Amino acid sequence: MQIEQTLFGKIGEESIWKFTFSNKKGTKVSVINYGAIITEIQTLDKQNQLANIVLNFDDFTQYHLHNDAYFGAFVGRCANRIANGKFSLSNDPNHVYQLAVNNGPNHLHGGIKGFDKKIYQFQIQQPNQLILTGVSEDGEEGYPGKLEIQIKYELNDENEFQMIFTSQTDKQTLCNLTSHSYFNLQTKKDFATCMQDHSLFINADFYTPLDDTCCPYGEILKVQNTPFDFTQQKTLQEQLSQQGKDNQLQIGNGLDHNFILKRSGKINLAAKVQEKASGRVLEVYTNQPGLQLYTGNYLSQIKGFVDRAGFCLETQGIPNSINIPHFPQVELLPGQTHEHITLYKFSTI
Amino acid sequence: MQIEQTLFGKIGEESIWKFTFSNKKGTKVSVINYGAIITEIQTLDKQNQLANIVLNFDDFTQYHLHNDAYFGAFVGRCANRIANGKFSLSNDPNHVYQLAVNNGPNHLHGGIKGFDKKIYQFQIQQPNQLILTGVSEDGEEGYPGKLEIQIKYELNDENEFQMIFTSQTDKQTLCNLTSHSYFNLQTKKDFATCMQDHSLFINADFYTPLDDTCCPYGEILKVQNTPFDFTQQKTLQEQLSQQGKDNQLQIGNGLDHNFILKRSGKINLAAKVQEKASGRVLEVYTNQPGLQLYTGNYLSQIKGFVDRAGFCLETQGIPNSINIPHFPQVELLPGQTHEHITLYKFSTI
Repeated sequence: MQIEQTLFGKIGEESIWKFTFSNKKGTKVSVINYGAIITEIQTLDKQNQLANIVLNFDDFTQYHLHNDAYFGAFVGRCANRIANGKFSLSNDPNHVYQLAVNNGPNHLHGGIKGFDKKIYQFQIQQPNQLILTGVSEDGEEGYPGKLEIQIKYELNDENEFQMIFTSQTDKQTLCNLTSHSYFNLQTKKDFATCMQDHSLFINADFYTPLDDTCCPYGEILKVQNTPFDFTQQKTLQEQLSQQGKDNQLQIGNGLDHNFILKRSGKINLAAKVQEKASGRVLEVYTNQPGLQLYTGNYLSQIKGFVDRAGFCLETQGIPNSINIPHFPQVELLPGQTHEHITLYKFSTI
Repeated sequence: MQIEQTLFGKIGEESIWKFTFSNKKGTKVSVINYGAIITEIQTLDKQNQLANIVLNFDDFTQYHLHNDAYFGAFVGRCANRIANGKFSLSNDPNHVYQLAVNNGPNHLHGGIKGFDKKIYQFQIQQPNQLILTGVSEDGEEGYPGKLEIQIKYELNDENEFQMIFTSQTDKQTLCNLTSHSYFNLQTKKDFATCMQDHSLFINADFYTPLDDTCCPYGEILKVQNTPFDFTQQKTLQEQLSQQGKDNQLQIGNGLDHNFILKRSGKINLAAKVQEKASGRVLEVYTNQPGLQLYTGNYLSQIKGFVDRAGFCLETQGIPNSINIPHFPQVELLPGQTHEHITLYKFSTI
């Protein structure tokens, strides 16, 4: 068990480092201290071939200047959309905060310079544990309160990669974090067949439909008898093929929807993905109430990629909840600690 | 301003008292210390005629032995339904509590002997304020924790009747209270026309549909283009007339549904009712997130009444929320105070 540290790039004189975790099973995970981005996850297939299962860039410049699709990024202060970039906090319903508007009429993934674009302090705490720390200042991107952020990445010999995000604030604020890897368990050999070759289980009976701007507006619907029903394992293609007759898939130009996870304890299985040819299996566990499934509907805008070359499983709070009082809330108060746990477990069939 | 105290009935040797509030405008509200029941609300119509606007019984025996429809009752420990009478608390998700099952497969309105059947201590605190107090013992009807209950009833000269329910517990428990008056602003002269003569506004864009047992199961739907749309004033009859083609109205045998109230401050307008002939207007304000509209769909089971002789506007938490983690919750912890505020405002057109 070890973490290897290598130079990955520079911003001016400042070095950006890559940290590569390796375990006894041969799994390797690489992250950088820019955006706390996961740049590679190498796992074995059923024939013991090691390959990378997340979409990525080879050079740092791309991450620094052109990671518009949030490849592998740590996302905050608020993952997903906030309608019109506006919200009020419960302690002062009359004060309206205005955030950066960077996705149609809405605020997306923390704004213009979100947590995906920060440089983090780092510390290798144990042979298999990396701690990144950073600060989001009071007023940054329009959010109130100074937020102190800690990201703990850890790989163990049970082939589990665990992320724990903890945050504290000095004023009442919002905090809703996620990790934004695009998975392709075929290891990207053929981008075009990603959707048909992955089958997916999501541990959710309900999802939040979108308004015309891709933002949840308040309804909570059953997945049963819809393209959002992954309670039995389904291929992504099978569900996306219903786009012609499903208004929600049309709005998202595919799947880009938040599922409300079933929960029986603190940490629960959110999703399980299998890829038949490679035999690779990914399970995602989390303590968060929501899971955004995004099928990379606009990836052709990224040079070298095609639409639907990978899919995201973003564990998070319920999007736009601050504007919808009946959704589970993501407010953080001084004295409280926001703790987000997500765990990827790698195996083969 | 005064409260008149008169003997209303007896249980064995124990006296049950009626307290009648009167204000300068001529409004009179009567409550008894059995079930904290509101037995009468007399308001003036546009021709200055005083009459009672809630369904009631004349004698105490009916309230004591046959108030199966909860006429005017204070309801708890949990208003509305809990699916299968089962729940777990967040501090111990593995322990299942089993409550009394008294409505099909479900628990309803606190069980066999709920707060509607308790005898309360009383105190006239100010000339216009009555305090009732009671205790729900640990284990009562299956609920954990000893709950201390205070009910404050107050009538002022602005024609507002305010109810404040406060409760504290010594163990983590549920607490979701309501007041269960059946209104008929025609003053019951003709029971049969209640639904067509009342028009109603409800301050809600969303409601919680019911499963086959009349229990919310997790979906939250828009009211728009449904019989649940009272965002513009509608007669109850107009909405009920859609029962033939609306599965939800069929399940409830009419309206028996929870609305999710819009909220902009601590206390918000929940509903406004007008009755044209009398000119009477009732506004309901509350700090609660939900409003159950019940159109008295089974009132013919009560001697002397017909179905839909009155309707209820039950301010409350979201029903069955303890079994649906994404609903706003009604758990109460030691050290916390549950505070339910509901205010009726009486006027004329």
